[in-house]
Amino acid sequence: MIKTIILKNRPEGKPTLNDFETIEHDDDLSIEDGEIVLETLYVSVDPYLRGRMSAAKSYVEPFELNKPIHSGVIAKVLESKHDNFSDGDYVSGMLDWKTKQVSNGKGLQKVDPTKADLSTYLGVLGMTGLTAYCGLTEIGKPKEGETLVVSGAAGAVGSVVGQIGKILGLRVIGIAGTDEKVALLKSKFGFDAGINYKTTENMKQAIAEAAPDGVDVYFDNVGGPISDAVLFNINKFARTVNCGAIAVYNNTDLPKSISVRPFLIKNSASMQGFIVSNFEDKFPEAIKALSGWLADNKLTYSETIVEGFENIPQAFIDLFNGKNKGKMVVKV
Amino acid sequence: MIKTIILKNRPEGKPTLNDFETIEHDDDLSIEDGEIVLETLYVSVDPYLRGRMSAAKSYVEPFELNKPIHSGVIAKVLESKHDNFSDGDYVSGMLDWKTKQVSNGKGLQKVDPTKADLSTYLGVLGMTGLTAYCGLTEIGKPKEGETLVVSGAAGAVGSVVGQIGKILGLRVIGIAGTDEKVALLKSKFGFDAGINYKTTENMKQAIAEAAPDGVDVYFDNVGGPISDAVLFNINKFARTVNCGAIAVYNNTDLPKSISVRPFLIKNSASMQGFIVSNFEDKFPEAIKALSGWLADNKLTYSETIVEGFENIPQAFIDLFNGKNKGKMVVKV
Repeated sequence: MIKTIILKNRPEGKPTLNDFETIEHDDDLSIEDGEIVLETLYVSVDPYLRGRMSAAKSYVEPFELNKPIHSGVIAKVLESKHDNFSDGDYVSGMLDWKTKQVSNGKGLQKVDPTKADLSTYLGVLGMTGLTAYCGLTEIGKPKEGETLVVSGAAGAVGSVVGQIGKILGLRVIGIAGTDEKVALLKSKFGFDAGINYKTTENMKQAIAEAAPDGVDVYFDNVGGPISDAVLFNINKFARTVNCGAIAVYNNTDLPKSISVRPFLIKNSASMQGFIVSNFEDKFPEAIKALSGWLADNKLTYSETIVEGFENIPQAFIDLFNGKNKGKMVVKV
Repeated sequence: MIKTIILKNRPEGKPTLNDFETIEHDDDLSIEDGEIVLETLYVSVDPYLRGRMSAAKSYVEPFELNKPIHSGVIAKVLESKHDNFSDGDYVSGMLDWKTKQVSNGKGLQKVDPTKADLSTYLGVLGMTGLTAYCGLTEIGKPKEGETLVVSGAAGAVGSVVGQIGKILGLRVIGIAGTDEKVALLKSKFGFDAGINYKTTENMKQAIAEAAPDGVDVYFDNVGGPISDAVLFNINKFARTVNCGAIAVYNNTDLPKSISVRPFLIKNSASMQGFIVSNFEDKFPEAIKALSGWLADNKLTYSETIVEGFENIPQAFIDLFNGKNKGKMVVKV
């Protein structure tokens, strides 16, 4: 029997287990030329999937109701009639939340389990690492000696962004939601300073103290009031990289904030949103840099690995409860 | 006697005549080598001056209380002991709100009254034209066939932005605050469509109808709810040029808006603030283009000329009442 997780309801506000359903069924796994049979090993759960669960127009089509959800997956090739893949290969790609499935190989990359743990290809050597590298370098345009602030700093993307910032010679300040995470920012990831936004009453002032020369680059994973507080501290020509807005993804009303426009005008500053696929032509350079830093122990990462296919929905929901440290991955 | 206008009080909310004072005094106008005596002919009043009247940090120092205000001025050289200027020359530059003053010539450019009306050098061939050209081309990066929306479209900057958009082959939609202004956008400035935001109930829908292919470039002179409505209509990779925020300059509380961040992320879109001096190295190119278009009758402009030095404060206040069509200038 194959298990599949489908989108049962479009979440209202924060997603709940009722929005998902795991079904068991017999799929025909016989393949034709050009196809492969895949067994799912690791599934990536990511905040951006929340957007696709709503019906609203976004940068990608919404998930369909009663159809399988898909995200980044590491799978093993059980059988291949495809020239590019052999039995026993490991691949990475956007695949359905199914324990087994047939694919035509489109969009799949082979990954090497001898070079890095398989789950790494969903994290620092996968979409999250690429997101961190491309967003920071292409939009943030960091310069040695500048100050970088990262929100969601202990998360999969944020922790890599901060480390790249340090490698490039910036002062790096991270914002996270527990004292434990803030401690990790400094002890594990080498940030210069960390701020616990849940226990800090005046974020505007705390950022000013941690960034005495002001903020030149803000890598924003959260949106919301934390990002408003950063605005008061930006320097002339500051760049904000709008990577995520987890603070407001579950809002049912349109989120309000202070108006960013006067801050942008006063400081000749910019804000830019992106998705990682905008920078596909930079991926080889990014993977080369990230792999090199990993090999040189200049880059480290955290993973939260949840076990069990059926636990994918709960792992996804827990992203919004801050239960993950670093990349959240489900091991099937 | 010389007249000078000083900043008497920092405005709370909308500026009033009480915030200014005109004083008369005898200045010593005798000059030394390297100096010139200037007689003020035209004074530019601009929304951005409101920011400098507050004590808050901005991109330039606040005006000092009880000191003369300054802005763009066209003046005649009454006497010169400066190598670069002769008696009878006309100059443009940032000068005090004084009927006569001594200058060392720094930052002054000579202007030619035989090539264009003198007031033009405060408008389409001066700061407002440069602002329109540099903001649109350097940040908006307009491409033929795209759709450009301009707010404050009948204003000094907006009307030039829209015309440049048409010259470059874009569909251009202007937003203004009276039916008369909206009519001018089409009849005088060649916009494809105009929207009166004061009589339009659903701005989001009105913009959608005027921009059936969505909005690629938004040149924002106003900020506030109009700009929020534009956000709902932006395309992937849209660029917002944050030139002004006249809608919120007089707010005494921090203005709120819907959060722009989810829109930027969904659309890989950008917002960027600027001041014209960021692009000084583009000024020669800009002046050449603007002068050429003027000479070819591809570019026209509106001016509202108020007479009398004492009326400078009222002319400035009237900017916030939408009393100007195009560039507001005071003829001394």
